[in-house]
Amino acid sequence: MKKSIFYHAGCPVCISAEHDIVNLIGLENVEIIHLGNDRSKIEDAEKAGVKSVPALVTPNGNVLHINFGASMEEVKN
Amino acid sequence: MKKSIFYHAGCPVCISAEHDIVNLIGLENVEIIHLGNDRSKIEDAEKAGVKSVPALVTPNGNVLHINFGASMEEVKN
Repeated sequence: MKKSIFYHAGCPVCISAEHDIVNLIGLENVEIIHLGNDRSKIEDAEKAGVKSVPALVTPNGNVLHINFGASMEEVKN
Repeated sequence: MKKSIFYHAGCPVCISAEHDIVNLIGLENVEIIHLGNDRSKIEDAEKAGVKSVPALVTPNGNVLHINFGASMEEVKN
C-alpha cells in the first residue's frame, strides 16, 4: 500500500496527533514530514491541499486536517 | 486492541472522512456512530471531548477532530 504522509510543524498539537496517527495506522504506513525542519517540502504540502498542520494526506490523495496546530501561513513565517 | 470511535453526522465531509479512516485503520478497528441517527450518543461524544464532527476518539481517549463538517451545536439542532 502507498504510504500516507503526515505533515506537521513540531507544535504540541502536532506531536500529540503524530503519536495518535502512528498508533492507529502504524509507523510503516506513514511518512512523517516536519515542515519546520524540512522547509523545501512546504510547496509539496500546499500542492497536496494542506491548509494547516497537522494534516494527513492519504494514499488516494485526500487531506485530513487534524485538530489545529498552525496554518500554512504560520508555518512559513 | 480497543476500538477507536468515529463520530459523524452524515454530512458529505463526514462521509468522505469516514471512508478515509476506514481505509487507513480498518473497519474492524473502529466503531462508527452516526449522531444524527443515534442521538442518544451525543452526550457520550461530548463527554469524550468531541467539539465537532467528524471526529475520531482513539483507544487511549484522545480526540482527533478531522476537517470540519458540523459543530456539536449544529448536530443537536
